[in-house]
Formats: sequence, structure tokens, C-alpha cells
Amino acid sequence: MSALALLDLASVFIFALTGALAASRAQLDIVGFFFLAALTALGGGTLRDVLINREAIFWITAPELLLVSSLAAVAVFFTAHRLESRLSALLWLDSIALAVAVPAGVAAAIAADMPPTVVLVMGMITGMMGGLMRDVICNEVPVVLRQGEIYATAAFAGSGAALITQQLTSEPLVMLLACALTTWALRAGSLAFGWRLPVYKARPPRR
Amino acid sequence: MSALALLDLASVFIFALTGALAASRAQLDIVGFFFLAALTALGGGTLRDVLINREAIFWITAPELLLVSSLAAVAVFFTAHRLESRLSALLWLDSIALAVAVPAGVAAAIAADMPPTVVLVMGMITGMMGGLMRDVICNEVPVVLRQGEIYATAAFAGSGAALITQQLTSEPLVMLLACALTTWALRAGSLAFGWRLPVYKARPPRR
Amino acid sequence: MSALALLDLASVFIFALTGALAASRAQLDIVGFFFLAALTALGGGTLRDVLINREAIFWITAPELLLVSSLAAVAVFFTAHRLESRLSALLWLDSIALAVAVPAGVAAAIAADMPPTVVLVMGMITGMMGGLMRDVICNEVPVVLRQGEIYATAAFAGSGAALITQQLTSEPLVMLLACALTTWALRAGSLAFGWRLPVYKARPPRR
Repeated sequence: MSALALLDLASVFIFALTGALAASRAQLDIVGFFFLAALTALGGGTLRDVLINREAIFWITAPELLLVSSLAAVAVFFTAHRLESRLSALLWLDSIALAVAVPAGVAAAIAADMPPTVVLVMGMITGMMGGLMRDVICNEVPVVLRQGEIYATAAFAGSGAALITQQLTSEPLVMLLACALTTWALRAGSLAFGWRLPVYKARPPRR
Repeated sequence: MSALALLDLASVFIFALTGALAASRAQLDIVGFFFLAALTALGGGTLRDVLINREAIFWITAPELLLVSSLAAVAVFFTAHRLESRLSALLWLDSIALAVAVPAGVAAAIAADMPPTVVLVMGMITGMMGGLMRDVICNEVPVVLRQGEIYATAAFAGSGAALITQQLTSEPLVMLLACALTTWALRAGSLAFGWRLPVYKARPPRR
Repeated sequence: MSALALLDLASVFIFALTGALAASRAQLDIVGFFFLAALTALGGGTLRDVLINREAIFWITAPELLLVSSLAAVAVFFTAHRLESRLSALLWLDSIALAVAVPAGVAAAIAADMPPTVVLVMGMITGMMGGLMRDVICNEVPVVLRQGEIYATAAFAGSGAALITQQLTSEPLVMLLACALTTWALRAGSLAFGWRLPVYKARPPRR
């Protein structure tokens, strides 16, 4: 199993958990859990594959990923009520999923011989878009827009770390690891210690 | 005209009616009616065709479908004010459109030689995504997330019925009919008799 | 540089400004500015390229467009607080972007030998979808749905003007100009003078 396939698998499972947690917050039935889990788990990678024009979307050639996503949905369905705070669980799991999905996007874009700017963007898209779809459909404020939190920045820094490491070493695993750790360190730091970038504050708009 | 083309045609017309009804509820002008009708009518099938990498999106090789969708928009523009309840009309028409679009998705996926899990998902995507786009853009609670109603479940059961029937008979029309009837029976039962699955109810989340 | 590449470049820059203005209204950090600018700037053209099955998305073969979009984001980040009304700036810039993106969509569809109805739709999609994504993600009422304002109508009329001009002259620049001017005249007239189409007004729905 290639490193890319493994990353896809892990990010599908963890993002599916966050989708199912969102379904539990919206009090859906089990099929709603399946639906939101799959959308969150597969959305970012699907968009990546459509954009780089891969011959087939990753989960169509590996439909067992749909079962992985459904397993995650079932697991949450039977355990979420035990969580202290489902929002907090969602945010922490989302941070791990982000840290796994960004390198998955970077690896796929490099495998498709994309130029560096496109690699950067594909890392961000793969990491952020599944969660964005989840939040838009649930009509929650997208995590990426939560004021002052480091999110897009983490994905950007992670993709950037991958590009820099790639210049320094020929070992792809080192690159993927640097990417994942950079992404997660920034995002987790923001969640745990309230790290943030300065946000835009202007006079309140007249209307 | 193939069964698939006919299903696409019917689902375009009926979903366009629901899109136009949503436009009437949002009090748009006639071009807004055209826009929401087309988005709802073509959204699900477009996503399906992009995902299974069909050589061309269905309405690009059959642009007369755009006229069909516009006709539906005009029809609603001149009649919606006579309806007792436009929400109820929208929900019932949506149930019929769902029951027509799910088999259209299943048939297209089978024609593209997809594995069973992917066929299942394509039936659900084709059936649900147009309406989901309509609801997200109009900023209404997506039908698929209305608490406890059977919607994704109906699409899932319909796709599943198609897969089972396919094992039992070589007659594609029987399969499409089984799929449509299963989908509609469950969705209509939910609308008419309040059938529902148990929804997820946990302690209210702390934050 | 072809006329199409130039139109893509201009629409990317101007739509990126509107995306960054939306980011300033949502008080995001600088990476949030980059993200919303790129999404707005590239969303419509990306969808167009996916739908007409171009061999590559326009910004993947021209990744410098990502830098253009980021430049626009930086420019807004350092100047938006000086604006009298950021909403009004956003709407006026959006009208110019619309008037540039509609001909870009028309030109791409004609270059791909699409039939006239599809050309019409691609003009509208390219013009409207980036802004629509921006507004859905920021959870604002999409410009296209602002009651009674001329927006989709302007894109439709502009695309239509292109198709008519194409019959009258073999000069593509005349066609693109007719398209841009028609689109902008209608949209700007709506903003400046309150031009509007009759909107749908029925009895209030019972529920």
C-alpha cells in the first residue's frame, strides 16, 4: 500500500468521524450520519482529483473507503453521547484530519507533476474543503472562518513545509512527515493555547 | 430515446419545478427562477457525470434540457401564487424528482461499469445533490437534514433495491422501476404518515 | 497573450478584490484573505473548465494567477479600512468582475465548440459562480438572490448579446466587448439607479 493510499485512508476515517459528529450535533438519523461522514471524508480529495484531472477519483477506484467512512459513522452513532463536548471532540479530530489530509493532497499533486504553487493549493484544498462542505451544509460557521483561529494558515504552512523539505531531501516520507507535523502543530497550538494571527479590524462598515 | 435519457429528462423537469418553487418563496425575478430551476435540475446529474468521468456532462450533449428546465420555471412563475402551500408542493414534487433521479444515477453508474458500492453512492448523489444545492443557496435547512424525515434513507434503499433486483433479473426496466418505487414509497410515506427513523438524541452538548 | 487569457487575468484580479473585501467584512486574518480571494477569483472559471471538460483547469496551467489573486488580497488587507463602505465597494467591484468574467466564459465555451445554449450558460456560470461561492461560504445572502436586483439577468443578457453579435461580425473582440458592456450596463444601472425586474409576489405561503 503506497504512502498516498495510506494517507487517504487515514484522512477518510478521521474526517468521517468529524462528519458524523456534526450529524450528531444536528440530531440526524443513521443514514444522515453516513451521508455527512462520506461528504466530509471524501469531499476534499474528490475536489483535488477533479482539479488535477486524475483519470479516476480516489474513492471510485477504492470503494472500500466508503465502508471505512460508514464504519466511522456507526462508531460515532453509538458513542457520541458519552462525549463531554462533541464540539471540542469535533475540533480536535478535525485538526488531526487536517494534518493527514494536507500531505495527502501534496503527495497527489506532486505525483501528478504539478508546479509548486499548485502543489501548495492542492494541499490546502484537500485539507480544508471536506470540512468546509460539512460546515456549509450544516449551516455552521465554517471552521476556516472562525475568527482569528489558525486554520488556513496551518494548511498553508504545512504545504509550504513540504515544498521546502522536498528541496532538502529526496525521501518522500520525511517530506510528508514535515508537512503533517507543521500543519498539526499550528492548528493544535491554536486550539490549545489560543495562538492566533492578527485579524482584520476596521471601523465597522457603515452598512 | 434510451431509458436513461428519459429518466434524465423527467428528473430535470420535476427538479426544475422545485427549484422554481424555491425561487418563488425567495421572491426572485424570472431570471432568478431560470437560475434556481437549472441549478436544481442539473446539479445532481452534473456531479455524477464529473465523478464517474463521463466524456461529457449529460446536459452539454443534450442542451435542450436547459429549455425543459426553463419551461418548468416559466410554468411555476405563472401558477405558484395559486398554490395553497408552496412548501408542501415543493416537498411533494421533490419526492417525485428524487424517485426519478435515483434510478437515473444508478443507470448511469452501471452503464459506466462502476462497482456496486459506487453505484449505490451515485444513485444517492444524483438524487440528493441538486436539491441540496438549491437549499444551501437559498439558505434553507436542506431537505436532507430535516430532522427525522426519511430522505437519504429513501435514496439509499432505492439504490439498494436496484442492486438487489439486478441480481434477480436481467431486465433493466424492472430494476429501474424497483428503484423508483422503493425510493418514492419511503419518502412519500415519511411526508404523508410521518414515518421516521430514530434520530440521534444525546445530552445537549455543553457548548 | 490571447484575449481569453487576458479576460481570465482581469476577472481573477477583480473578483479576488471582492473576495478579500468579503474577508475584511468577516474580520479574517491574512491567510483567510488569500483563501476567500482565490475561491472567489477562481471558482467560476474552474467550474466552467470542469463542465466543458477542458484538458486542464485554467489556473493550473497558469499558476501565476494564484499570485495575482494573492496580490489583490494583500492590497485589500492594507487599504480596506479606508473605504467609506466596504459593502458598496464590494458590489461595484463585483459588477465589473461580472462584466469581465461573462465574456471570458463565453469565449472559452466558443473555443470548445459548444452549442449556443451551452455558451449562454457558460457565460452565466463563469460570471456568477465565484461570487456565489464567496457569499454561501460567508453565509451572506448571495448577490444573485438579492431581491429584485438585476444580476443573473445582466449575465444572461451579456451572454445573449455575445451570441447575437457573433452572427453579425466575425471579429471576436467586438463580440467580447458587446458582451462586457451589456452585462455591465444592466448591472451598474441596477446598482446606481435601482433598475429592477418585477419580482415574484404571491400571497405569503401558509407555512
